[in-house]
Amino acid sequence: MLLAEPGMTPASWREHYERSGTPTDIERFLEHVRVDYLPHTVLVDCTASAAIAARYADWLAAGIHVVTPNKRANSGDLTYYRRLREARRAGGSHYLYEATVGAGLPVVHTLRDLCETGDEVVSIEGILSGTLAYLFNVYDGNSSFSEIVGAARQRGYTEPDPRDDLSGTDVARKITILGREMGLGLELADVKVESLVPAELRGGSIEDFMQQLPRFDSMMRGRLDSARARGKVLRYIGRLTAAGEASVGLAELAQSDAFANIALTDNVVRFATRRYCENPLIVQGPGAGPEVTAGGVFADLLRLAAYLGARL
Amino acid sequence: MLLAEPGMTPASWREHYERSGTPTDIERFLEHVRVDYLPHTVLVDCTASAAIAARYADWLAAGIHVVTPNKRANSGDLTYYRRLREARRAGGSHYLYEATVGAGLPVVHTLRDLCETGDEVVSIEGILSGTLAYLFNVYDGNSSFSEIVGAARQRGYTEPDPRDDLSGTDVARKITILGREMGLGLELADVKVESLVPAELRGGSIEDFMQQLPRFDSMMRGRLDSARARGKVLRYIGRLTAAGEASVGLAELAQSDAFANIALTDNVVRFATRRYCENPLIVQGPGAGPEVTAGGVFADLLRLAAYLGARL
Repeated sequence: MLLAEPGMTPASWREHYERSGTPTDIERFLEHVRVDYLPHTVLVDCTASAAIAARYADWLAAGIHVVTPNKRANSGDLTYYRRLREARRAGGSHYLYEATVGAGLPVVHTLRDLCETGDEVVSIEGILSGTLAYLFNVYDGNSSFSEIVGAARQRGYTEPDPRDDLSGTDVARKITILGREMGLGLELADVKVESLVPAELRGGSIEDFMQQLPRFDSMMRGRLDSARARGKVLRYIGRLTAAGEASVGLAELAQSDAFANIALTDNVVRFATRRYCENPLIVQGPGAGPEVTAGGVFADLLRLAAYLGARL
Repeated sequence: MLLAEPGMTPASWREHYERSGTPTDIERFLEHVRVDYLPHTVLVDCTASAAIAARYADWLAAGIHVVTPNKRANSGDLTYYRRLREARRAGGSHYLYEATVGAGLPVVHTLRDLCETGDEVVSIEGILSGTLAYLFNVYDGNSSFSEIVGAARQRGYTEPDPRDDLSGTDVARKITILGREMGLGLELADVKVESLVPAELRGGSIEDFMQQLPRFDSMMRGRLDSARARGKVLRYIGRLTAAGEASVGLAELAQSDAFANIALTDNVVRFATRRYCENPLIVQGPGAGPEVTAGGVFADLLRLAAYLGARL
């Protein structure tokens, strides 16, 4: 880590870091940022670390605001999630995490506005993984599924280990976050997840996985063909109902379905509520990537500033 | 108007109003709500009145917050709009108007988040009138355009005078509001508006208008046919670019265009920005009606409460 007083220019941080960096020590970091002469402290956690997320409760209770795109705290243990809410209340602090779902797309705040103004959410459905959106937008049977996964990996559209996308866990985390936001006592384990990683390939190296994946192409091809026989297309969808049913997996959709017609790596979220009943409220667009995620985090930071009395 | 201390139950306001109502007097109303023992005053203007909107600047300058779905102030004279911004700054007050565009849909705040976090808006396009969306979703040549307008009016989908919808002014107001939000010095008169009210029918009673409208059916039918000859559909669209080009009118769209496939009275807004360049950010759903508009206004009110330090 690198501590500096009073700050540093973005242009030269790397040079400073190489010269004066020290081993990461969160306690020292906190001492550094929490100084008497500054009225507010906010930690922007841009890691994906469960260990950092485990500290939020203490920080919030101590009046330190937290802004994060890290899904770990909100999709982790429910008891801890509830402790976060209490800590925030006790500490008079703010906890903002719009970018945990759909990056910069207005998803979490839209849901919160609906709930806080007395609407009742009936269901939320979404394509919440740009990677899985891409794979099934492209998969038309001309290339095998494993070839498409391989090509997507080459182009940087998947995680280094594509199993991190194909397992559906990331989508299940997002569904958990949205479910809790609408008031459900949902655990990640309650989300029925259809993993696209064949059971035999869950262990082993990335190279092994990529090499073995073609063995399962015919299975995926069978699903595509049977969907097509019914005039449908395959999409990887997350679903959530007011009754707490939560699932993530492959679904067959009509070709006219809005979810069947999104652009390459788009995310899309559809809120059906008591108010938005005949037609749902839909938010759609790129839902991953450094720039739009940074935009979502930055918007939360400005919202926090407004909550704290800044005139923007 | 009806003033009460300390308030009244929603169930019986009508009865109270009939017994104790007095002629509307904004000055007396202000005296009533601005009392020393309450820390904040907010006026929620749910009229469509230009006369009320003309008072916002004084109220904001005096530290009174304003929440409104009324489009008049933000789409009126640009000098006044700028005075509003200054008054808000001088008074340390908040001015919130999410429901002026798309009712409860997250449009204004999404645009503001993009701009404030340093994104650059390239263009905004939208179907911003539920009425016009409905008319062109339904108009397929089987019924004449005037029949469709008549039926929509019967079902309460249009204003009492359908010319208020068909003139395009309402959409132009929304485009003006969005343009100013993205920093353009736009006047309503700068928006190129294609009115669907034939010039000869602009005056006269509603009945005259409805009676004369069939005379223009063949003209509209000609436009539909020529669009179809090119494999296109007709939609009434508002457009806005970073260079300040603003227009509102009928456009021919490909049948695969997202705007060609919205449900009946849906609004849809498409933001193309430097960040959202390959695929735009899209917000879609019912954009008019009392319940969703009230939801948008209420969400603004809760946002204001959060800005003022309420713990929600």
